[in-house]
Amino acid sequence: MNDTFLKACRGEEVKYTPIWIMRQAGRYLPDYQKVRSKVDFLTLCKTPELAAEVTIQPIDILGVDAAILFSDILIPLEPMGLKLRFLEKKGPVFSNPVRDRRSVEKLIDIEPEEDVPFVLDTIRILRRELAKKVPLIGFAGAPFTLATYMIEGGSSKTFLNTKRMMYQNPPLFMELMERITDNTVAYLSAQIDAGAQAIQIFDSWAGALSPADYERYSLPFVKDAVKVLKKKGVPIIYFVNNCAGILDIARKAGSDVLGIDWRIDMAKAAKQIGKKRSIQGNLDPLCLFMPRDSIREAAKDILSKASSARGHIFNLGHGIIPETPVDGAKALVDAVHEISSK
Amino acid sequence: MNDTFLKACRGEEVKYTPIWIMRQAGRYLPDYQKVRSKVDFLTLCKTPELAAEVTIQPIDILGVDAAILFSDILIPLEPMGLKLRFLEKKGPVFSNPVRDRRSVEKLIDIEPEEDVPFVLDTIRILRRELAKKVPLIGFAGAPFTLATYMIEGGSSKTFLNTKRMMYQNPPLFMELMERITDNTVAYLSAQIDAGAQAIQIFDSWAGALSPADYERYSLPFVKDAVKVLKKKGVPIIYFVNNCAGILDIARKAGSDVLGIDWRIDMAKAAKQIGKKRSIQGNLDPLCLFMPRDSIREAAKDILSKASSARGHIFNLGHGIIPETPVDGAKALVDAVHEISSK
Repeated sequence: MNDTFLKACRGEEVKYTPIWIMRQAGRYLPDYQKVRSKVDFLTLCKTPELAAEVTIQPIDILGVDAAILFSDILIPLEPMGLKLRFLEKKGPVFSNPVRDRRSVEKLIDIEPEEDVPFVLDTIRILRRELAKKVPLIGFAGAPFTLATYMIEGGSSKTFLNTKRMMYQNPPLFMELMERITDNTVAYLSAQIDAGAQAIQIFDSWAGALSPADYERYSLPFVKDAVKVLKKKGVPIIYFVNNCAGILDIARKAGSDVLGIDWRIDMAKAAKQIGKKRSIQGNLDPLCLFMPRDSIREAAKDILSKASSARGHIFNLGHGIIPETPVDGAKALVDAVHEISSK
Repeated sequence: MNDTFLKACRGEEVKYTPIWIMRQAGRYLPDYQKVRSKVDFLTLCKTPELAAEVTIQPIDILGVDAAILFSDILIPLEPMGLKLRFLEKKGPVFSNPVRDRRSVEKLIDIEPEEDVPFVLDTIRILRRELAKKVPLIGFAGAPFTLATYMIEGGSSKTFLNTKRMMYQNPPLFMELMERITDNTVAYLSAQIDAGAQAIQIFDSWAGALSPADYERYSLPFVKDAVKVLKKKGVPIIYFVNNCAGILDIARKAGSDVLGIDWRIDMAKAAKQIGKKRSIQGNLDPLCLFMPRDSIREAAKDILSKASSARGHIFNLGHGIIPETPVDGAKALVDAVHEISSK
């Protein structure tokens, strides 16, 4: 198996810089669209054979160094009692958002093997099928990010309901965060037990908080989760979106790797993270629309700036967007492998 | 006249920290809604008596130290040839976005006194009515931010069309940016000539760029505009939204004041900005939903962290949102005045 990715996570020596791409199994791939045209998004997540099939697609097509389970961060919230629907234009919607004590108390603790068997079965299939290829990454949303979806009932621009609860009823907000953290730990533990060889925690909305609020309302829960999950022995990546103002705080979460978005200079980020953790990132996903030569230059710049880090896993700074030309993604993977092999 | 705001912009000594609030004339005020219920948003912007009326409302209601012209950053794009509509849920929409050379060449250079007389008339009315009260701030969008609206045809999450032009046809993008910059300079010059006593340049979307792209594609045009406008002698505020990763670059624009959002620690920002410029910001707008005592604590923290700056104008880190309780805004203004007077 190609273990370059796992080595870079641990800061061990590698022959070249490994790369994978957030949302690498997704709509930009015609092969994915072919599968997706037959079933809706949630059914795809919940059908192990199909989820495994789309997970593997980018490994062969792009030549990336890791696979990431095809799923969604909101999946474990359904068995917790939230009614989840994906609307074609609006994205995820919960018809019963959690905004008061009664709703927090009604939440159900999940039993992963019973409540989300399809996730664990997908992992088991993937470990067999990827055995001689690349490692498999499992994932979950960070507690704060999951809380925003639960409280808002979907995506949000201002996080009005989330921050209202946070600012007006901190004890209730903290109670909700604890419930989510416990369930996230159970969910990720089950993924590791089923075979996930690394996990990524997505804090997609951490960057909507002021640094002081991030440190008070998001970080402690990630830290708690990391502490428990570390005992399982697999590398933990903590992806913090819009991290420029909070990266020096986010490093305290204790993850093996910090994933960063593109709105911070890689050299500055590597310096802030220090020598105890590896770094993952951070090309602007829209750079894949550049001509091939410019993609190469952009990759070269990031590789050079990340060279001071303990370890570097190349990635985009956010998920690849559906309109992306597959050739752009291929050009990036080739460039990263070629430049970093020298 | 209360000139505390102007003094703080110039880094002169003040008896207390001045405060104004982005979107202080807006939907959260029942008085504003009363005016707005009679006319649509664009008509309100284009009717000097009404625009002046809503501009003044927060001066009396909140007791802020500056007024800002009621208008919209997209107003000067209409006479440039873009067909502007405001849809109730979607926000601003242009039916003829600028995406190719032909569209760039078809753009019309504006003559402010002929094309946007209502803006200048509003300023003239306001200067008379505010004479013994507070200074008046004029404003415009930064060239990059305006370019995103022109190219996308409205708001955007990924800036696909903007970045596609930027990455695939840099000469055309630069040509468009120059056209926008020239017109923005003409527009702001006319506002100053009509009586604006300070101006703010809003770079609402600068923070969507990587630091390297921001330095290449946004900064030079703001810098050019500031250079010309400085000769007019009024303070220039450059507001950079989502600035944490680019503030050290944004300071090179040469503005008297840098406006910052809430996703960066004020102490860190003040340090990065140095002793040559004043700083404006940076409370999370959602903090106005806090209880009165917590608002006071949050204000105190920012005031204390900004004390190392050359000058500080208190503000939110982004526009006040429509759902905000007026009492929260009042509590903030009172707290800032009271704490900083000590």
